[in-house]
Amino acid sequence: MSSSFANTTIDRPQYALPPSDSRAQTKQFVLDLQDEICQALERLDGQARFQEDNWEREAGGGGRSRVIRDGGVFEQGGVNFSEVWGDTLPPAILTQRPEAAGHGFYATGTSMVLHPRNPYVPTVHLNYRYFEAGPVWWFGGGMDLTPYYAFAEDAVHFHTIAKQACDAHHPEYYPTFKRWCDEYFYLKHRQEARGIGGLFFDYQDDRGKLYCGPHTDSPAAVYSDRVGVIPRTWEEIFAFVQSCGRAFLPAYVPIAEKRKDTEYGDRERNFQLYRRGRYVEFNLVYDRGTVFGLQTNGRTESILMSLPPLVRWEYGYEPEPGTPEAELTATFLKARDWVG
Amino acid sequence: MSSSFANTTIDRPQYALPPSDSRAQTKQFVLDLQDEICQALERLDGQARFQEDNWEREAGGGGRSRVIRDGGVFEQGGVNFSEVWGDTLPPAILTQRPEAAGHGFYATGTSMVLHPRNPYVPTVHLNYRYFEAGPVWWFGGGMDLTPYYAFAEDAVHFHTIAKQACDAHHPEYYPTFKRWCDEYFYLKHRQEARGIGGLFFDYQDDRGKLYCGPHTDSPAAVYSDRVGVIPRTWEEIFAFVQSCGRAFLPAYVPIAEKRKDTEYGDRERNFQLYRRGRYVEFNLVYDRGTVFGLQTNGRTESILMSLPPLVRWEYGYEPEPGTPEAELTATFLKARDWVG
Repeated sequence: MSSSFANTTIDRPQYALPPSDSRAQTKQFVLDLQDEICQALERLDGQARFQEDNWEREAGGGGRSRVIRDGGVFEQGGVNFSEVWGDTLPPAILTQRPEAAGHGFYATGTSMVLHPRNPYVPTVHLNYRYFEAGPVWWFGGGMDLTPYYAFAEDAVHFHTIAKQACDAHHPEYYPTFKRWCDEYFYLKHRQEARGIGGLFFDYQDDRGKLYCGPHTDSPAAVYSDRVGVIPRTWEEIFAFVQSCGRAFLPAYVPIAEKRKDTEYGDRERNFQLYRRGRYVEFNLVYDRGTVFGLQTNGRTESILMSLPPLVRWEYGYEPEPGTPEAELTATFLKARDWVG
Repeated sequence: MSSSFANTTIDRPQYALPPSDSRAQTKQFVLDLQDEICQALERLDGQARFQEDNWEREAGGGGRSRVIRDGGVFEQGGVNFSEVWGDTLPPAILTQRPEAAGHGFYATGTSMVLHPRNPYVPTVHLNYRYFEAGPVWWFGGGMDLTPYYAFAEDAVHFHTIAKQACDAHHPEYYPTFKRWCDEYFYLKHRQEARGIGGLFFDYQDDRGKLYCGPHTDSPAAVYSDRVGVIPRTWEEIFAFVQSCGRAFLPAYVPIAEKRKDTEYGDRERNFQLYRRGRYVEFNLVYDRGTVFGLQTNGRTESILMSLPPLVRWEYGYEPEPGTPEAELTATFLKARDWVG
């Protein structure tokens, strides 16, 4: 895998300089995105409001964490903003961008996980982030949907909005970042996708390849290196990331609106709590942001806002064939194309 | 850390050969231990019985997993036996025992986690295992207790029984393996011990040091290398491990008997479910056996039998000062000496 990474930048002498106000621009974008999303989610929820915690990071920077709980729609959800800086990036990142070694870094971003109470409303995750370190800068992020009782029309809708956001910028974006998402959000020990996917990308700059991988042993990790370096400026990549960020509400809210009043009972609730265990397993075992944050003195409560409020594990559980519970894994938790 | 490991064996030409029936002896021991423990736990529970699954491992070997649920005492618990073999040990182990490189391996062991329903009865974990690989063999294991509502007299009892099992074999065992346990079962991101500790050891052979570490950033990881290599035979180490295994029931059952009928309400139950989240966090983020098993095609359902049946996460929870919930972290979840 490291050999793939060794080949993710092209032989151009240097990265173009970002604009002089690059940090202010990206920080304002993620702050505004956090605000827009929180306001719209409060309207959707109808009952609960986000509670905000502002915090500082000892090694530099800080953030504002917002949590909604016990709402009309959301059992628990968190939307984080953070802006951090320090002397050195962690080794895992330096392996991928060795030019950053010996330089301080700056990073800002927003991340979100929402756990609705109704098992018919999918859990959803979003994250967009921007890094600078010496001569290197890049954007990363994405959004992905994790249904418990899944509907093909919802998967098609979510992916259609994601694709539209991508297609406005480059035709290779959606097919590349859709597959990268399938590859990343994969639980190898369960041989299951975490959900129905969405978008995921990292290391988007003006020298690197569009796709940097493979990162996992997912069966989805078969995407070849046919997509190389696409000539782009800082401004073009930032515009793309903004489009992706703004695509979240139209991608998710209509699904939540449509499903939030569906009747359910103990069976659906128990299945949802069981499936939430997979979310915990992914985030604690595989998610690099979570594991890295926990192991490097990140703000634990903000990092673990992604975990569900109530979770169940059951040894040897298998859904009855032919039920919606069995259909979830058989049909939806496998990488597949939802839009043409 | 690798520098510590590079120095964990002494300059003696070779390991003594284990007895010709070493695998049969150790396998029988862990099978018998699984049987004894399951029978005693069923008597303690009074209602539920263990359900057994026999399974085979594609790459060699297999096991028998036993699960008890919805009992009078145990909400869920698993006791595993496994015997596995293969072509090569994982890199993390080869770093520590490089002599095993290029050799096939054999491993057998038993592991157990019990999650009682009553928040006054502690969760408990046990694991004993034996490895052979080419010229190398070793024993590892231990047991440790994780209370939710903690009592000093229970901690003293558990450690007293553990110490007695150790002291019958060598006076350095208990102080060394007690501290190693404190060091290993530590959640760095919470700055908390998982519980009140017990015993933990690994790589016990006739050439290696008693203590191989440090492995973590725990404040408990301050144990010096004053204990070097203690001259011991295979038979002596095996006898010690058997004593430890047999110490489990007298260490745990009296505590469970004493606490199992304590009255409790929603407050205690909610706190237990919240604290169980720490168990999940430890097992999925730090426990090398769990993470290694999941990433190398172990039997997922047997590995994750250690996870609690129902778990709660709550953003920003802090117990009221002066309550038993606050006393747990303040007094019990810090490494300390429970017996002289």
